[in-house]
Amino acid sequence: MAMESGQTDTMIVEKRVFSMPELTTLSGKTIKNVRVGWECYGTLNADKSNGILINHYFSGTSHAAGKYAESDPLPGYWDAIIGPGKAIDTNKYFVFSSDTLVNLNARDKNVVTTGPASIDPATGKPYGLSFPIVTIADFVNVEKALVESLGITKLHAIAGPSMGGLQTFQWAWAYPEMVERIMPVISAGDASPWLIAWLNVWATPVRMDPAWKNGNYYESGQPLTGLVESLKVVSLHANHWKWAEKSFGVSWAEAGKDPLAAHENRFKVEAALEGDARMRAAVADANHFLYLIKANQNFASQGGIGIEGLKKIKAKVLLLHSPGDQVFPGEWTRTSALKLKGQGLEVEIAEIEGDFGHLDGVFSIAPHAERIRAFLSR
Amino acid sequence: MAMESGQTDTMIVEKRVFSMPELTTLSGKTIKNVRVGWECYGTLNADKSNGILINHYFSGTSHAAGKYAESDPLPGYWDAIIGPGKAIDTNKYFVFSSDTLVNLNARDKNVVTTGPASIDPATGKPYGLSFPIVTIADFVNVEKALVESLGITKLHAIAGPSMGGLQTFQWAWAYPEMVERIMPVISAGDASPWLIAWLNVWATPVRMDPAWKNGNYYESGQPLTGLVESLKVVSLHANHWKWAEKSFGVSWAEAGKDPLAAHENRFKVEAALEGDARMRAAVADANHFLYLIKANQNFASQGGIGIEGLKKIKAKVLLLHSPGDQVFPGEWTRTSALKLKGQGLEVEIAEIEGDFGHLDGVFSIAPHAERIRAFLSR
Repeated sequence: MAMESGQTDTMIVEKRVFSMPELTTLSGKTIKNVRVGWECYGTLNADKSNGILINHYFSGTSHAAGKYAESDPLPGYWDAIIGPGKAIDTNKYFVFSSDTLVNLNARDKNVVTTGPASIDPATGKPYGLSFPIVTIADFVNVEKALVESLGITKLHAIAGPSMGGLQTFQWAWAYPEMVERIMPVISAGDASPWLIAWLNVWATPVRMDPAWKNGNYYESGQPLTGLVESLKVVSLHANHWKWAEKSFGVSWAEAGKDPLAAHENRFKVEAALEGDARMRAAVADANHFLYLIKANQNFASQGGIGIEGLKKIKAKVLLLHSPGDQVFPGEWTRTSALKLKGQGLEVEIAEIEGDFGHLDGVFSIAPHAERIRAFLSR
Repeated sequence: MAMESGQTDTMIVEKRVFSMPELTTLSGKTIKNVRVGWECYGTLNADKSNGILINHYFSGTSHAAGKYAESDPLPGYWDAIIGPGKAIDTNKYFVFSSDTLVNLNARDKNVVTTGPASIDPATGKPYGLSFPIVTIADFVNVEKALVESLGITKLHAIAGPSMGGLQTFQWAWAYPEMVERIMPVISAGDASPWLIAWLNVWATPVRMDPAWKNGNYYESGQPLTGLVESLKVVSLHANHWKWAEKSFGVSWAEAGKDPLAAHENRFKVEAALEGDARMRAAVADANHFLYLIKANQNFASQGGIGIEGLKKIKAKVLLLHSPGDQVFPGEWTRTSALKLKGQGLEVEIAEIEGDFGHLDGVFSIAPHAERIRAFLSR
């Protein structure tokens, strides 16, 4: 495709791999040969003071910005705010991001992760449910090892949407001396039984699929039906009714097939949710999905978090939330903001407008570019 | 239990049965020997002008008020506003309510309904999925036959929460000359693809349970695992995070069983949701659940509804909605109110406060008693 100037402004990025010989988890287990993928945008300066770490959301990857190739249909999820001259300016900052442990997209060629689908060096077979239960604190400890491997002792900022926001909070209270600024987006600094219960609901279809076999499906094939149904729930929960109304209305999935006429006839919104979930399931691993759920449920674990965690934070804070969010209701973010302000921190909070509920934290962040740029310069 | 006055103010009610030799459904099928349960409170006056019909919610029954026996632990769901001297005053009005077709609680001894668990007179066996697909319009047509059997030609009012609100709207546009006032609560006058998609999610666990057998389980036993999981989703979706925080916090289900330590260890909110769903599943039928979902998804069917339906309404309108409602977001109710006002109707709309989201339309309606009383007197 010819471009007017003969040039392109696409930022081409490549996946790297970070390895650790072993990790001790919050629950006291050891994982050997930990490998996670990561990517970076921009250049680390001489005194290594310009690092900005980006944490991905539940079903995301370290692909926060740029493209792997010009021909990629879409760039990384926060490309609107990360790049040369953008809000998180890669001409100025060394921006980097890593795939979490138990990353959902274990079968995506651009993802490197360690989890139940990985080979257990002790047996030569996939771990399945014998993989240690991990949580957000473990994700952060892998990232900390990556940060240290780069020679960085203090991060200019850490940011991330949703689960990436939980990691951001976890960083700021676990390693307050290493974090100058945090920007958790569509997230909150405390665990909620409501979210714990919803995560249980997300897991149900995978657990109910007979092909799941208590996690031992690596020879027989994964529980695809359950995984598709689970990812449908995630998509719907993370979205908003305005999206459904604007995208689908109450049209039928197929002309002439009235949903009132037969059990199998569906509405367009039902077919679309399934189609999307099926595409995502193709690169996902069902056990990784369950481990991610457990990791998020246990954000509230005894590892020094929640209200006590917030008290340890020393960073400057920018919080963005979405009023239509049903995964992290805005009131949770506002509560975190109040607590952080109450302990004397510099806290800015703003609302993201959009039609996508929780997902506005990914899709509709562009209008906050100048706010973010200013926050990073303060 | 001794009472001070030696008297009781419990309203004792009894279940009655209404039968129709046959019903032609909106989809053009015939159901023979239709039977539904109903109950009434108060006395029909001489000119039969004081009838108020109450429609129940998705997982409810015709037990809107009173008790079957003094020893019942709880009265009907809207007992706070229905009874002698209450907002819907049974000293003044003849209040009555019926179980819908395909009522969820088909195995409850106090429920009479016709649906896939009923015996097909043509085969002598339960219908299963050969039972005709029905929708809200069919529920209303059964009620209309009941109303006519009582000699009532015009209802003083029709009211109901959630699905009962949909029936109320359907009544008002299908039979505008028969309805003087409507009070749909936590409901809206149009279908939404968002709700259609959520109803699909509700159905998933039942459909995934191998014991469901495409609905042919009446000899082998019903898909209880799936039904419990489905009812968990319904409960959670209809509730609110404030309820979860106040009731459970992030406590563990069992002391000493840290959810971070083992896959099977859970949080209290997870165990509570399951326990509640298990109790409800004991009197429910899985096929009835799926038929109810289909009925609600098809509220938007070609039978003369939606925006076109609203235009036919002639009744006075009182709409109550809950700001934390995730099943029928308040904005949907407000949109219905604007449309109805726009066509010159007398419309009052008010917000129900509470910690239970959608369920505040059932649990937290008492503070609106005087508003309801005044509406019924206008």
